[in-house]
Amino acid sequence: MRVINFNAGPAGLPQPALERAREELLDFQGTGMSIMEHSHRGKDYEAVHDEAISLLTGLLGIPATHQVLFLQGGASQQFAQIPMNFLTPEKSADFLMTGVWSEKALDEAKYYGKPRIAATTVMADKRYTRVPKQAELQLDPKAAYVHMTTNNTIYGTQWHTFPEVGGVPLVADMSSDILWKPIDVSRFAFIYAGAQKNIGPSGIVLVVVDKEFMAKGSQNIPKIFRYSTYAENNSLYNTPPTFSIYLCRNVLAWIKSVGGLTQLEKWNREKGETLYAAIDRHPDFYRAPVEKESRSYMNVVFRLPSEALEDTFVAEAKKAGMVGLKGHRSAGGIRVSLYNAVSVENVKTLVSFMDQFVKTRG
Amino acid sequence: MRVINFNAGPAGLPQPALERAREELLDFQGTGMSIMEHSHRGKDYEAVHDEAISLLTGLLGIPATHQVLFLQGGASQQFAQIPMNFLTPEKSADFLMTGVWSEKALDEAKYYGKPRIAATTVMADKRYTRVPKQAELQLDPKAAYVHMTTNNTIYGTQWHTFPEVGGVPLVADMSSDILWKPIDVSRFAFIYAGAQKNIGPSGIVLVVVDKEFMAKGSQNIPKIFRYSTYAENNSLYNTPPTFSIYLCRNVLAWIKSVGGLTQLEKWNREKGETLYAAIDRHPDFYRAPVEKESRSYMNVVFRLPSEALEDTFVAEAKKAGMVGLKGHRSAGGIRVSLYNAVSVENVKTLVSFMDQFVKTRG
Repeated sequence: MRVINFNAGPAGLPQPALERAREELLDFQGTGMSIMEHSHRGKDYEAVHDEAISLLTGLLGIPATHQVLFLQGGASQQFAQIPMNFLTPEKSADFLMTGVWSEKALDEAKYYGKPRIAATTVMADKRYTRVPKQAELQLDPKAAYVHMTTNNTIYGTQWHTFPEVGGVPLVADMSSDILWKPIDVSRFAFIYAGAQKNIGPSGIVLVVVDKEFMAKGSQNIPKIFRYSTYAENNSLYNTPPTFSIYLCRNVLAWIKSVGGLTQLEKWNREKGETLYAAIDRHPDFYRAPVEKESRSYMNVVFRLPSEALEDTFVAEAKKAGMVGLKGHRSAGGIRVSLYNAVSVENVKTLVSFMDQFVKTRG
Repeated sequence: MRVINFNAGPAGLPQPALERAREELLDFQGTGMSIMEHSHRGKDYEAVHDEAISLLTGLLGIPATHQVLFLQGGASQQFAQIPMNFLTPEKSADFLMTGVWSEKALDEAKYYGKPRIAATTVMADKRYTRVPKQAELQLDPKAAYVHMTTNNTIYGTQWHTFPEVGGVPLVADMSSDILWKPIDVSRFAFIYAGAQKNIGPSGIVLVVVDKEFMAKGSQNIPKIFRYSTYAENNSLYNTPPTFSIYLCRNVLAWIKSVGGLTQLEKWNREKGETLYAAIDRHPDFYRAPVEKESRSYMNVVFRLPSEALEDTFVAEAKKAGMVGLKGHRSAGGIRVSLYNAVSVENVKTLVSFMDQFVKTRG
């Protein structure tokens, strides 16, 4: 019996994508071996690799100006690899600070250049409960790029209108909300996303990079760290994480099969609105700390009247077949992650549980 | 029907390790979700993670002076990450050149320090057919470390006696022969191995590092690139490739179940000796270019009288259920990779085919 999985990441994956993997785990398409036992230079694997790129290109509407790359090391490695490629000790980059991941990205950039805070919504207690408004941005037109985190898993905030940054290249960590809805990729010079929330297993990072921006990358860094190395070799310069890319392919194929990002957005909006409505109709019991306009549709955070009640909530939900509801260790409370593999039905089950919980414990 | 897989990497994996993964792919130990859908901070995943470390520690006899780390990016990233940690523009490291992978490791080191060739067996045609002898090493006692590749997949050579390097830390790329037999880990300051040959799928790198050596690593590099970051966080600083580590755990458990490295060495020696004997008994047909004392037990390379015959050999072997026999694109010829998942029986099947092939085509 599968549980309802609200994990923040690694997160639940669409069951059809996993079933497909199970079906052919020891014998991929009659080749007599698992896809993970195929050479990454063979035609069987390459077809999967290229299909993953092609599916992502189709789903996101990636223009010809941009290229898809597969990297490793998680978004955390990108925090360092992006400034390694695009900064020098004299160059600065602007950071829009919206949470822990923005902070980590800024910290790693210090080793290569001059990161600068162009906006922050941090509060006295070091938390963040909203994203900045356009008028709050103090952008440097000479910055090498502007870095943002489109969705903040820990604090449950999300940018619903992407910032205007003039002619400066916009770099976005979309690890926790890529593919939640259609976006205009052309607004971004560099998009990166660890796969383990909306795309696949951990251990693979998807990058969508503007080729002109990429061309500005340093050539004075190791070949393995240059984005151009991946671009020139279709992400096959060295052995990629083939099975992880195969699983991403399965998830992307599933997304296409259910109607693409237009359909996912409908479901995701319904999921988020259903859950926030449940919180808002019990304001004396459930408290959502995030400013309404910044509420995330991917990670919904809220508090109960006491930590003891929060623990009971998590424990009783688990008994009812729902897991992954405990808030991040640094934030506490409840966190419900509503990535693409979570269905509208799953959220309705949770909401019934929440309504019932107020009745019995409120 | 599973084929006999002689791929050089990604390579065949032990069938029991794959069957175990298939069995619980959608429901890991009754938790209602795949292990790849578990949080990396949850107790279910952490048990797998710690078991993988513990199995590797037991199998290799890793002393308390050393620590196991899980990294990403392949051995190719280690070519850059090791000098990033341990070199500065003033510091040099000694490289023992035995093939393409040593060359790539040396090239990446140039971005951080002064790599120096302490021995090379390269020939006029840029190939390598042996590893250096102890007397050929011209070591610098002031080097930050000595770098070697223990087995060379492309040229089919292997170090059968590890070099004496005095008090200088010895760093070894063991990607293609780790776990082929017991070794004395204490002789190495740093061992690294991409998993996709003897350990698991691609996308995960195993490191075994001497803690004292690690402590010499730079603190002036991004946190994500410091080995100490992985060591301090049990390789859970950021999200590791959880499913890949799980698969490695399955392979390591299989190795233990069949008798550990002592048993694997017996099988590997029998496999190699059986195959080299077949080559040597048809010296007018099969030509092994590698010096006998440097012959690899992991990758056996040989030529046939013509490229046309080599193509026929590969094609007919495929019809007989044996794949992965084509030599590396840069070397040509035939390459038979005999990693741990290849059985003695598999090699006997190949040798029968080879004997027959000489009769019909010789």
